[in-house]
Amino acid sequence: MPNSVYKKVDFVGVSPNSISEAINNAIAHAATTEKVTWFEVVEMRGHVEEGKVTQYQVILKVGFRVGP
Amino acid sequence: MPNSVYKKVDFVGVSPNSISEAINNAIAHAATTEKVTWFEVVEMRGHVEEGKVTQYQVILKVGFRVGP
Amino acid sequence: MPNSVYKKVDFVGVSPNSISEAINNAIAHAATTEKVTWFEVVEMRGHVEEGKVTQYQVILKVGFRVGP
Amino acid sequence: MPNSVYKKVDFVGVSPNSISEAINNAIAHAATTEKVTWFEVVEMRGHVEEGKVTQYQVILKVGFRVGP
Amino acid sequence: MPNSVYKKVDFVGVSPNSISEAINNAIAHAATTEKVTWFEVVEMRGHVEEGKVTQYQVILKVGFRVGP
Amino acid sequence: MPNSVYKKVDFVGVSPNSISEAINNAIAHAATTEKVTWFEVVEMRGHVEEGKVTQYQVILKVGFRVGP
Amino acid sequence: MPNSVYKKVDFVGVSPNSISEAINNAIAHAATTEKVTWFEVVEMRGHVEEGKVTQYQVILKVGFRVGP
Amino acid sequence: MPNSVYKKVDFVGVSPNSISEAINNAIAHAATTEKVTWFEVVEMRGHVEEGKVTQYQVILKVGFRVGP
Amino acid sequence: MPNSVYKKVDFVGVSPNSISEAINNAIAHAATTEKVTWFEVVEMRGHVEEGKVTQYQVILKVGFRVGP
Amino acid sequence: MPNSVYKKVDFVGVSPNSISEAINNAIAHAATTEKVTWFEVVEMRGHVEEGKVTQYQVILKVGFRVGP
Amino acid sequence: MPNSVYKKVDFVGVSPNSISEAINNAIAHAATTEKVTWFEVVEMRGHVEEGKVTQYQVILKVGFRVGP
Amino acid sequence: MPNSVYKKVDFVGVSPNSISEAINNAIAHAATTEKVTWFEVVEMRGHVEEGKVTQYQVILKVGFRVGP
Repeated sequence: MPNSVYKKVDFVGVSPNSISEAINNAIAHAATTEKVTWFEVVEMRGHVEEGKVTQYQVILKVGFRVGP
Repeated sequence: MPNSVYKKVDFVGVSPNSISEAINNAIAHAATTEKVTWFEVVEMRGHVEEGKVTQYQVILKVGFRVGP
Repeated sequence: MPNSVYKKVDFVGVSPNSISEAINNAIAHAATTEKVTWFEVVEMRGHVEEGKVTQYQVILKVGFRVGP
Repeated sequence: MPNSVYKKVDFVGVSPNSISEAINNAIAHAATTEKVTWFEVVEMRGHVEEGKVTQYQVILKVGFRVGP
Repeated sequence: MPNSVYKKVDFVGVSPNSISEAINNAIAHAATTEKVTWFEVVEMRGHVEEGKVTQYQVILKVGFRVGP
Repeated sequence: MPNSVYKKVDFVGVSPNSISEAINNAIAHAATTEKVTWFEVVEMRGHVEEGKVTQYQVILKVGFRVGP
Repeated sequence: MPNSVYKKVDFVGVSPNSISEAINNAIAHAATTEKVTWFEVVEMRGHVEEGKVTQYQVILKVGFRVGP
Repeated sequence: MPNSVYKKVDFVGVSPNSISEAINNAIAHAATTEKVTWFEVVEMRGHVEEGKVTQYQVILKVGFRVGP
Repeated sequence: MPNSVYKKVDFVGVSPNSISEAINNAIAHAATTEKVTWFEVVEMRGHVEEGKVTQYQVILKVGFRVGP
Repeated sequence: MPNSVYKKVDFVGVSPNSISEAINNAIAHAATTEKVTWFEVVEMRGHVEEGKVTQYQVILKVGFRVGP
Repeated sequence: MPNSVYKKVDFVGVSPNSISEAINNAIAHAATTEKVTWFEVVEMRGHVEEGKVTQYQVILKVGFRVGP
Repeated sequence: MPNSVYKKVDFVGVSPNSISEAINNAIAHAATTEKVTWFEVVEMRGHVEEGKVTQYQVILKVGFRVGP
């Protein structure tokens, strides 16, 4: 296994529907510019209105290869 | 943006069906007495019987405005 | 197992005699208004005078059922 | 030193002007209903608009005596 | 309530479909040899290919009774 | 000092009487199969009924030598 | 509330005068290229010479919207 | 309340008998040279021989006034 | 850059007026005996009377060179 | 990618010579009974005699596949 | 000391040979585009095959000046 | 095993060459005044110039016996 270098960047995915969709939104966005190979969930939170969750917010670390 | 004060209270939502339902149960309860505006997931755990999850338990911090 | 909701509140029990008594003091107080079912020790500290512990302080999270 | 019991509650103080004012707002509010004797800063964050901080948010644990 | 002893072991459940299925896989495996009674989620991460999550990985602590 | 390898396993000792007895129960059990040489307290919690602690639960990491 | 994606980046603001100015410096810089909407204080430290603080260093997570 | 300065130092109290005695040993030692006013428990561990705890080790932060 | 060794000591600065003054008090004291070169804020807390902060307490790690 | 399950176990590798050798010792031992595929360093410590490190101790989480 | 702003980015250095080389690989890569001035080790892990470490992975925070 | 008391002090070892040498430097210094018996690595960081690590900095807790 040769040398290599990866980068990890924090994204916050947001979805009105579910935790999964929030994760997918963040990864889909990150993948538009980088070749993402893994993610780690850092935190989950959300917005509430009139006793209902109206927004799921998932903070992720997203990892992708940057070198050689 | 004027001054204001919020309070955060720990709730544990419990559901036999899913993490999402456990979150919703906690928030629905909290919203019966307070105007909840956000939540943060602190911990997720559950009860197991005969190799099946029979109860999802999600510890949340629930935030709501208390003044002024 | 049906849905249910619990609340967790931070109490600090104080005793001149022991860690156990400090825990018991906090729980006995909490139980005067709520049906406490569990506790978690968060932190233990104390006051010292002339080289002797004169006060044990135990920070607890106390859990009790609030719904339904 | 006799037995006693304290409670700790999370408040979020908000101020457009400074961290200090955010702390003071939370404590002043808490003190309207409880005899607050100490606070601990848990987290500091804020809102930004057009490159300026428009809101300081300080999450505090506020402690007050509840028993005997 | 008599004395008893429990053990907690770290498992990583993996699923191509969802966080829930990853949790269930880990617990179903652990339950083949032990009488599991609870779990705690420690970490959630996953593998990504071409902008899609292809694997959910959930690290759990799984608890079961070992004595007396 | 030659090479050697140790293993650490999480046990939860439970006692109706005290934190100390809960620690001793976990260690006595672990020592039936392994040559335990140290422990670390990870967490302390308990069960409460009618305002009394009816069960102390202490989570320990227990260490023992496994190699050479 | 539709889907969206945010990014969080760590900045260290430095000021010879105060914690506030260190925060403002980091945010003003970040805002030259991104539409910053919030920050979180991660760590505060500083440099000392001859018994005086000559530099305040505040590590911040700065959040801004990157997607849709 | 005027200005003042305190120092916190880590001590490890050791006792063959109990957690309490380990705490007391550390504080009694620290108090031979400093006017200790509080302590915080950081960690509890111990040594085990033949299935019995033969040594309790409690890591404490001990606080005392050093200035004006 | 040659070898060298630094030491870090925990101080608690106290001030009736502000967080900054509490930091400065701790550093000024430490600098009377050591050549302090940096500090890290570990914790911020305070005392409250009649709804006003009467004492800011800042726990710092203070670093200074001890060798060679 | 199909379902699968991994287990993580804490080992402490010990070596009189280096951190690397301590890691290798723990992994070589674990690999005698399990098909280890990864490790995570949890903690590094050591024993000192007469101002020299005589033993490096590295606590690792070691991961291996246990299921299907 | 004038105002300035630094940025911290997470890199993962990978090497088949050693922790040091993994650190160096990450820093060498980061330094191709930024004037790196410091790093902090966040986590160390690795890949294992047939009882040997075949890959060291070191997660670093890398710091460099971005402003004025 | 009789009573005893240990003290833990934070040192930062610095070396231009390696993590090991940084650890050794801190311990050798501490051992000039105290009978050090163990150390724990708390943090590893370093200084970088022109894409090369020019200084390794290791923060250690160093333990030594102070009483009876």
